[in-house]
Amino acid sequence: MKIALAQINPTVGHIAENIRSISAQIKIASKKRCDLIVFPELSITGYPPRDLLENTEFVQRNLKALQELAGATGAMGVIVGFVDHRKNLPGRPLANAAALLQHGKILAVRHKTLLPTYDVFDELRHFEPAKENKPVHFNGHKLGITICEDMWNAPGFMPAHLYGTKNPVQTLAKAGAEILINLSSSPFHRQKSRLRLELIRYHVKQTQRPFLFVNQVGGNDELVFDGNSFALHRDGQLVAQAKAFQEDLIIVDTRHNAPQAWEETEDIAEVESALILGIRDYMRKCGFKKVVLGLSGGIDSAVTATLAVRALGKEQVYGVLMPSPFSSRGSIVDAQALARNLGIKTHVIPITPIFAAYKKILRPAFKGLKENVAEENLQARIRGTLLMAFSNKFNALLLTTGNKSELSMGYCTLYGDMNGGLAVISDVPKTLVYVLGRQLNRLHHVIPEASFTKPPSAELRPNQTDQDSLPPYDMLDAIIEAYIEEGKEVGAIVAAGYDEKLVTHVLNTIDRNEYKRRQAAPGFRITPKAFGMGRRLPIASRLQH
Amino acid sequence: MKIALAQINPTVGHIAENIRSISAQIKIASKKRCDLIVFPELSITGYPPRDLLENTEFVQRNLKALQELAGATGAMGVIVGFVDHRKNLPGRPLANAAALLQHGKILAVRHKTLLPTYDVFDELRHFEPAKENKPVHFNGHKLGITICEDMWNAPGFMPAHLYGTKNPVQTLAKAGAEILINLSSSPFHRQKSRLRLELIRYHVKQTQRPFLFVNQVGGNDELVFDGNSFALHRDGQLVAQAKAFQEDLIIVDTRHNAPQAWEETEDIAEVESALILGIRDYMRKCGFKKVVLGLSGGIDSAVTATLAVRALGKEQVYGVLMPSPFSSRGSIVDAQALARNLGIKTHVIPITPIFAAYKKILRPAFKGLKENVAEENLQARIRGTLLMAFSNKFNALLLTTGNKSELSMGYCTLYGDMNGGLAVISDVPKTLVYVLGRQLNRLHHVIPEASFTKPPSAELRPNQTDQDSLPPYDMLDAIIEAYIEEGKEVGAIVAAGYDEKLVTHVLNTIDRNEYKRRQAAPGFRITPKAFGMGRRLPIASRLQH
Repeated sequence: MKIALAQINPTVGHIAENIRSISAQIKIASKKRCDLIVFPELSITGYPPRDLLENTEFVQRNLKALQELAGATGAMGVIVGFVDHRKNLPGRPLANAAALLQHGKILAVRHKTLLPTYDVFDELRHFEPAKENKPVHFNGHKLGITICEDMWNAPGFMPAHLYGTKNPVQTLAKAGAEILINLSSSPFHRQKSRLRLELIRYHVKQTQRPFLFVNQVGGNDELVFDGNSFALHRDGQLVAQAKAFQEDLIIVDTRHNAPQAWEETEDIAEVESALILGIRDYMRKCGFKKVVLGLSGGIDSAVTATLAVRALGKEQVYGVLMPSPFSSRGSIVDAQALARNLGIKTHVIPITPIFAAYKKILRPAFKGLKENVAEENLQARIRGTLLMAFSNKFNALLLTTGNKSELSMGYCTLYGDMNGGLAVISDVPKTLVYVLGRQLNRLHHVIPEASFTKPPSAELRPNQTDQDSLPPYDMLDAIIEAYIEEGKEVGAIVAAGYDEKLVTHVLNTIDRNEYKRRQAAPGFRITPKAFGMGRRLPIASRLQH
Repeated sequence: MKIALAQINPTVGHIAENIRSISAQIKIASKKRCDLIVFPELSITGYPPRDLLENTEFVQRNLKALQELAGATGAMGVIVGFVDHRKNLPGRPLANAAALLQHGKILAVRHKTLLPTYDVFDELRHFEPAKENKPVHFNGHKLGITICEDMWNAPGFMPAHLYGTKNPVQTLAKAGAEILINLSSSPFHRQKSRLRLELIRYHVKQTQRPFLFVNQVGGNDELVFDGNSFALHRDGQLVAQAKAFQEDLIIVDTRHNAPQAWEETEDIAEVESALILGIRDYMRKCGFKKVVLGLSGGIDSAVTATLAVRALGKEQVYGVLMPSPFSSRGSIVDAQALARNLGIKTHVIPITPIFAAYKKILRPAFKGLKENVAEENLQARIRGTLLMAFSNKFNALLLTTGNKSELSMGYCTLYGDMNGGLAVISDVPKTLVYVLGRQLNRLHHVIPEASFTKPPSAELRPNQTDQDSLPPYDMLDAIIEAYIEEGKEVGAIVAAGYDEKLVTHVLNTIDRNEYKRRQAAPGFRITPKAFGMGRRLPIASRLQH
């Protein structure tokens, strides 16, 4: 059988566009005389549709689109992800489903069995799990169709307890499925692609069946889907691999085995590609063309600006330099060098006259009180306000440039440098921002060396550096990773060699700054645990570490 | 049996404080010679603990606290809510649980069967449901213990499909439970208290058993718990009712039936109490004493300021008046009259010099471009920045004053009037803000009449009123309610008598402004569907109504 895996990039909620994209791929696969084409999980609605699923008209439109798609099919089979309306209540009325279409009809429908409800996933909020999943018959073959999480409960491969012994992949193989097919919308984080390969190798070894994995690609809000679809022969060898971070169509002939080597992208190159795709898709799917951002001469804004240029083109990116009396000469020079290297337009707006106007008008009210964080934050907020004036005037989305280390510690100003519609590197720890900067400089050397080597500083008071307020970044990032990503508590982190007082301080500071993150712009997840939709903590809480 | 219902106000995450509160109530009930005292759902951890449940040390501390609590018990039984660690995997390792303690021991533990996972609830994210729930034995009696949602699947009372035929309350009665007890953390929305009374009356009618309902009271972030605990005799008559919106301890003697009348609070008075308690608890639980807010002379800031004074006292509330050239004389006069009536301190900071400084410095960059929304938003952002300067300087939480109608339509400025740590009336539609203002004026007439009668205006350009940009509020609020709270689509709303073009415009505008709400301050839920944690929509989505 000749099977096409269509790694498409749907837009959440835009059924008409998604159907156009699906139909275009069907046309191509049909011309190439494929027997079957497979699309990702929920390809008609886009993933994750979130509470759009509570809109019954939206669900109806998706069902109508499926019917129309089925009506247009001929001899070539189509497997597509959609939202099904369950007939057998009780339970939630919806299911995360896949349909097999052929000869103008819906031949079979299968529902997802394992519904992830943790981290960024909310599937039990909307869907009812399938109680069973049997192979579907297609052209005299039996296909075993699973959806994303269905393949992730593999007790021999990784510790699993959530779903007990349920393993739909193996159940289907035992029930006679000859070819295993998984429709996914599996979001990116570092090392995820490698993990999927190993997981599916495990399934192939257990079942002795070929396995086709079709993943969504593209950015939808905080999640970037990396694609990386592939197929394994029943002997475990790779026979097809789709591109990472772009749409692709790959074809597998199950009668011919042509093994190929697994192309692995370097970790930091994956992060780079994820962020570039994330920016491009967020802009396109929100209907924006231009971005604006503040350039401070530091590494965070340099990396963000470079990513934006790679995603959108230099004509679409504006940089604004906003020096104050506390700005070093290097700040301006480095920011201008970056802008020149990138070929982007800049404006220079000194904030001193505005800062003076605020201080003057506030003088009577603040009489007798010392300058403190209020004046420091004022500068950040003047800059944030100026950037939003550019955003409003030129209809350009403001990119905010804060990194994960700052956001963890609340080392950032609400309604100031946190302003923006998109937080490009908010899940990138500071130490990784430097590595990412080096990576970006490989293609063209655009980020000035000084942005890497000078001590990081917010420049809100004379001679300030980040390390006046924060522990050294290598230490801080290690503690953040242990706490946020690995869920470790003080004891375990101290046991790994960190000072107890420091660890306790960092963990309590992270918790206390939840209120800032609640109002932060959405940012792209690149680690197993990002702030945002996947981490839901109370604000008015008094947990002490 | 003499049973105390302890309606306490726990703080999420603060186990030590919650245990102190529990122990104090135990002491009182013991002195009053009660046989048993019952606390709300998850009283040891506070509700909702959200992803604090992923912190294993936190869960361990809660178990240790339960052990210590059990160790201190004597002849009086104690039923308390806690997070249990399940021994029998597979499944999630935690359960939402209740323990019966007596004579220094844990006599019995029961887990919650029905786990709400919709709207503001995420229980399947953390907990595994119980498979069965049998009565517990206590002093020769059989008690049927259920937890919150366990009583909400009552097919004869309301249409229910989520949990099928599972009805733990009736199952317990059939298994011989003589007294039905429900531990709840049931959040407030309008009319909820009445609904609970009717629901429990239904259960009593079905089971012919007395029913004791113990609810949490207090604010935890976006949710306010109203208390309103009560007990029904087996004949359906009310025999005890706790206060609304404050801690209380009521005692029921199951041998004596002393019927009393249900005290019903007026709808708008409930909203008033919920918001006052919400402010007070958010401040206390976050460790703040003072608030600051901008006074515009309009009804929104007047209502917010009055609620703040009632919650915190006039000494803790600062008002800031920030006139511009577009401010009407009435704005200042009305704001000053309000401040005088409330007895709060004010500062007057004209924004004109700062506005001029921004415009001057931006002139070269904006050369040849017409004034537009950029300049309007600048004014809002100058005000927001000034308010944050006061917030930082005086360590006062900034209250933001936007209402639900504005927030729906995006008729508000990010990093401007949306600035603030708490959005007091963000779930109150504009038409209800006026009713709430009248309600607040009942106690003392503090809000000037002009704030009710003048046309609402953002005063960002000459002679502007809200109705230049928005449909009349009575019409707008009706459409918002139909769409947000009732989940209706264009067709159904038009059928109710509204213009199709208008409805389509409102619904698309609401969707398009999701990005603003994503960065909005947390606000109190008073309707069945508020923006915030209970409504999770994509931003980069392209659904068209």
